[in-house]
Amino acid sequence: MSNPRRIRTRGRMADPVLVVGSVAYDSIVTPHASGERILGGSASYACLAASYFAPPRIVGVVGHDFAAKDRKKLEKRGVDLSGLHTDGSGRTFFWRGRYHENYNRRDTEDLQLNVFEHFSPRLPEAHLDSPYVLLGNIRPDLQLNVLDQLAAPRFVLADTIDVWIETQREKLGEVMRRSDLLVINDTESAKLTGEANVITAGRRLREHGCRAVIIKKGEHGAVLFHQEGMFALPAYPVTEVRDPTGAGDSFAGAMLGYLASVGRHDFAALKQGMLYGTAVASLTVEAFSTDRLAAAGCTEIRNRRKELLRMTKA
Amino acid sequence: MSNPRRIRTRGRMADPVLVVGSVAYDSIVTPHASGERILGGSASYACLAASYFAPPRIVGVVGHDFAAKDRKKLEKRGVDLSGLHTDGSGRTFFWRGRYHENYNRRDTEDLQLNVFEHFSPRLPEAHLDSPYVLLGNIRPDLQLNVLDQLAAPRFVLADTIDVWIETQREKLGEVMRRSDLLVINDTESAKLTGEANVITAGRRLREHGCRAVIIKKGEHGAVLFHQEGMFALPAYPVTEVRDPTGAGDSFAGAMLGYLASVGRHDFAALKQGMLYGTAVASLTVEAFSTDRLAAAGCTEIRNRRKELLRMTKA
Repeated sequence: MSNPRRIRTRGRMADPVLVVGSVAYDSIVTPHASGERILGGSASYACLAASYFAPPRIVGVVGHDFAAKDRKKLEKRGVDLSGLHTDGSGRTFFWRGRYHENYNRRDTEDLQLNVFEHFSPRLPEAHLDSPYVLLGNIRPDLQLNVLDQLAAPRFVLADTIDVWIETQREKLGEVMRRSDLLVINDTESAKLTGEANVITAGRRLREHGCRAVIIKKGEHGAVLFHQEGMFALPAYPVTEVRDPTGAGDSFAGAMLGYLASVGRHDFAALKQGMLYGTAVASLTVEAFSTDRLAAAGCTEIRNRRKELLRMTKA
Repeated sequence: MSNPRRIRTRGRMADPVLVVGSVAYDSIVTPHASGERILGGSASYACLAASYFAPPRIVGVVGHDFAAKDRKKLEKRGVDLSGLHTDGSGRTFFWRGRYHENYNRRDTEDLQLNVFEHFSPRLPEAHLDSPYVLLGNIRPDLQLNVLDQLAAPRFVLADTIDVWIETQREKLGEVMRRSDLLVINDTESAKLTGEANVITAGRRLREHGCRAVIIKKGEHGAVLFHQEGMFALPAYPVTEVRDPTGAGDSFAGAMLGYLASVGRHDFAALKQGMLYGTAVASLTVEAFSTDRLAAAGCTEIRNRRKELLRMTKA
């Protein structure tokens, strides 16, 4: 395995981060450009983002068409692929989407689950002791299945999407109660709680058993709701969005990677994690696919975090 | 004149703040309540907001129907009414508006300019030396007229609205160049620059001659663009919006009041001003008309500023 550069956040060995989610090929059209069959999926983005802070372990499935270069892309950033199952019976999950002017709406034009349809995450023996866990936006019953396999995770971050709020609400509730941090966007928090006001929605989610919640608002930043208080962080000032796909997964991956690197997950650490998550997500949206993310240097991430800190300091 | 309580920001006498703008009666319907012929107008809100920091001087016009109780409301907060002209020939500016679910859209159902139609601001002799000046969103040629009357203002804050961007763009450009700070919302900045991205719009406005710009994003906070850098501040976490009318005017009034109280307008002072502006605006939206604003205590404003500071500190 290669030895990728990491951001030194503290003078300690970073703990590993287990990431379960989708690995996909995306065909994306935006108002300014398009890309065909580029590496995507929540687990790919989250692992690459986490890799700047801690060693990621990916758990997912790909088909017989998964390219060696994409495998290499992940390996180069130190992603442990022993949990990435290749199902030779079919093709990799495929998604075709189109973004509209201003990127605030996207349409799914084609979706082929392929081998992902029968995906049931099975953790390699060596991953069962993973201390930091990111449950990407797969079906809630599969997220629970992952939690059941783990010995004693120290910190679990869970994500979800609209479709599970509509179809698996009860299981999702169980995921939320068994996680340490729920990270969702404002549309999802409104759907989950029936509350359009982000502040009320966040507080309600905590009342309903979430230990901590982050609600993401895209270009308007994100808000953390925690036992010790609230924390509101603006987005990094991106002026050239090229492809917003994977921004949320990059945010979560970098944030959890940071926590694993410092081995802490108190309020102060979560706030720092959000700064890094925001910095890394801003890189993701500036290019197609995982290109910018895979090529980003530690210096660039550190600089963006510093700039974010400077522009929010009263 | 009464001696209203003020927030002590520094151990000095606050400079006076001149506020020119509309004084109106508003009839407002929101999804949750309604109010008939309540005191409104940009100058009323801005003066009441400024009064917590510095002595405001209002410049505007009202009709024969302007109630003694509303005059008293302003006087009680120490607003100097010598520049408030009463035009006995007609009625006070009247606006009837309706807010829709989530308050992000409002319709004007009736608008009667009345005595405001022929308003031409004339400053009392004693106001010509005003150091801090707020040009409310009146016609740009009238804003320029005010600037021409002033001796040597130290700091000028200018506001505007959509209609002047469409009909008096050139004059508005002159106002922007002759002001120290332009405060507008994101719809207005997009219309002014043709740029939906707030970051790009803010930078472009500075390139076009604005010394400093604040773009307000409602519930998503505000961003300052300044020679020394950017500053992004989230909104105060309001969960019970009752009437958003006057939030922007309260923000501008409190902000300028703060600057007048400390007698400084550097980058650091502008940032502090935004904190106070945001705190005061959050009070305005929690009640109809100027009620909450006129009744707010200094302690409450200070507490909200402190909370805002705490929830944005990484």
